[in-house]
Amino acid sequence: KQIVLLPGDGIGQEVIESAKKVLESVTERFHHTFTYHTHDIGGAAIDKHGTPLPDDTVRACQQSDAVLLGAVGGPKWDQNPSHLRPEKGLLGIRKQLGLFANLRPIKGFDQLLHASPLKHEVVAGSDLLIVRELTGGLYFGTPSERRQNGKEVVDTLHYKREEIERIVDNAFQSARLRRKHLTSVDKANVLESSKVWREVVEEKKADYPDVEVEHLLVDAAAMKLITNPKQFDVIVTENMFGDILSDEASVLTGSLGMLPSASLREDGVGLYEPVHGSAPDIAGKGVANPLAMILSTALMLRHSFGLDQEAAVIEEAVQQVLEDGYCTGDLDVKGGKVVGTKEMTRLVLERVT
Amino acid sequence: KQIVLLPGDGIGQEVIESAKKVLESVTERFHHTFTYHTHDIGGAAIDKHGTPLPDDTVRACQQSDAVLLGAVGGPKWDQNPSHLRPEKGLLGIRKQLGLFANLRPIKGFDQLLHASPLKHEVVAGSDLLIVRELTGGLYFGTPSERRQNGKEVVDTLHYKREEIERIVDNAFQSARLRRKHLTSVDKANVLESSKVWREVVEEKKADYPDVEVEHLLVDAAAMKLITNPKQFDVIVTENMFGDILSDEASVLTGSLGMLPSASLREDGVGLYEPVHGSAPDIAGKGVANPLAMILSTALMLRHSFGLDQEAAVIEEAVQQVLEDGYCTGDLDVKGGKVVGTKEMTRLVLERVT
Ligand SMILES: CC(C)[C@H](C(=O)O)[C@@H](O)C(=O)O
Ligand SMILES: CC(C)[C@H](C(=O)O)[C@@H](O)C(=O)O
Repeated sequence: KQIVLLPGDGIGQEVIESAKKVLESVTERFHHTFTYHTHDIGGAAIDKHGTPLPDDTVRACQQSDAVLLGAVGGPKWDQNPSHLRPEKGLLGIRKQLGLFANLRPIKGFDQLLHASPLKHEVVAGSDLLIVRELTGGLYFGTPSERRQNGKEVVDTLHYKREEIERIVDNAFQSARLRRKHLTSVDKANVLESSKVWREVVEEKKADYPDVEVEHLLVDAAAMKLITNPKQFDVIVTENMFGDILSDEASVLTGSLGMLPSASLREDGVGLYEPVHGSAPDIAGKGVANPLAMILSTALMLRHSFGLDQEAAVIEEAVQQVLEDGYCTGDLDVKGGKVVGTKEMTRLVLERVT
Repeated sequence: KQIVLLPGDGIGQEVIESAKKVLESVTERFHHTFTYHTHDIGGAAIDKHGTPLPDDTVRACQQSDAVLLGAVGGPKWDQNPSHLRPEKGLLGIRKQLGLFANLRPIKGFDQLLHASPLKHEVVAGSDLLIVRELTGGLYFGTPSERRQNGKEVVDTLHYKREEIERIVDNAFQSARLRRKHLTSVDKANVLESSKVWREVVEEKKADYPDVEVEHLLVDAAAMKLITNPKQFDVIVTENMFGDILSDEASVLTGSLGMLPSASLREDGVGLYEPVHGSAPDIAGKGVANPLAMILSTALMLRHSFGLDQEAAVIEEAVQQVLEDGYCTGDLDVKGGKVVGTKEMTRLVLERVT
């Protein structure tokens, strides 16, 4: 298997290194051969190549079986014109690879739940998956431009019906592997695209009679994520709605530093990245938390390569490290022993072999 | 002053009646003369006139100084085609009256804070105002249509620069009357309209040197509302973003049943409504909580008529009723005495005279 590593900016370098070590150890144990190729993206690519997404990087990703991405962005590039912003690299690679399905699993760790802003009884037991459409919708529709000498501006929320169909299918399939409950989130009382979205979900329902389906307006979803996160199993929604709701959901369990994500296309090629950002303030200090990146490799093993057992080994090792009372500085484990990136990696390695 | 009452559906009738009584008592005490005209909107209007927004209602509102709206919607009309849905009445009247600024103040009541899904230390002391643009953006942009025989669909996020300018001005002015901190929320790393939005805020800043300004991406805002609601004073944002964030914020303080809202245009004409819905399940039972509607009349007195003192009398009366240990069934006041709509109204009346 060919894996492209895109460390990106800030702590990206450190967490990618750590994740690679864990992956090497697990693949060795299970006798798989993975080859790694490192390429630039984001701010690092702007500095070296004058663009956040060099052709070379795109080509390498296109030839790979999976991509691991650290993080992009930092204050250094914040004032750049928009085509020279690190995020453009991320948006570009998603679009170029056709990664239409963004999976964001959100599950609390017992050791961290007390750090949640929510009351224990509200959040305990939440375990949800947000399936966000990632290559269409309001993010990529055209026109997206100024008009009348800058006196007007438009963005466009555009979908082909088949784009909605494939993400809805993906979500139904994800629901089947879980608790078989799907919440489709839209704004069908206002948007035409949401009406089509709702129709597609209603049509597809017949193909998944074992999955229970519910429609929820996006404003109501934003409320219920807070008042009763346990009511959700799988949520499927438009790109922009998914961006907002998945970030909202990411802080519910007190585990933001632990959350992985997967961006997939139909043939299983995928890009895996932690939900957290590049944390420029702690970059290079050896204190970054590598666990979300490590858990992202577990998602890769499962979703791109069907290696469930190997994925589970990594996930259990991470779980075990927390149970054994270790954490990094960003995590608030009660009475936990705070360790740096290297030591945390070693602790996980100890538990995967 | 000419006031139009639009009871609408569900509990709308009951809470409007209650609010009118309180208003009559306060205006009498301060020697103002208000005249009331009742008209149909929403489901009730569909049933009687075959449209959620009869011309007659529009005309009456156009000739009035302020509008009080109960609530619209209910399962009875949920399957209707979209032009015959109760919400169309609400969207229509906002647009027809040009009510571009939706103000959603969110402040906890001490007696209710324990009902918040958030931990006490996270939510205590939060007091924020969301200023949502209400007549443009993704809600009203055209085209909003199916194409290619239904194989594609688009919605449009459209703004005139001047529409952004006037809502931003409104938010700066609101911030001046409060703690002088403004958070402008956008998605400037993706949307062209958000880039213009950010530019306008940067330009306007010079006119309000006493107000501190911060820009926040909508996904980050969705997180921070939960992790640190106290950091916000005034938030200003696009229509769709505002819909999502204001509903998210409305559940933070445990006071959903207590939240009023104002929708204003430049000359002070406004529509005032509770944030909660029409609650069809309890309609007609005499148990609806009229306090959000009553507090909406206080917003009307302040924003449409500049009657600050009168507004304060109502707000203090409501506060006092809670302090005296009374509540309605939807509120969770510890050891509170649960009363019905009529009795709650009487308790408020007792305290405004
Ligand atoms: C960096 C940004 C463009 C990106 C997005 O909005 O998709 C990020 O917020 C995310 O959710 O992965
Ligand atoms: C009923 C609906 C169209 C409306 C909106 O989305 O504006 C409501 O959610 C609100 O926020 O007042």
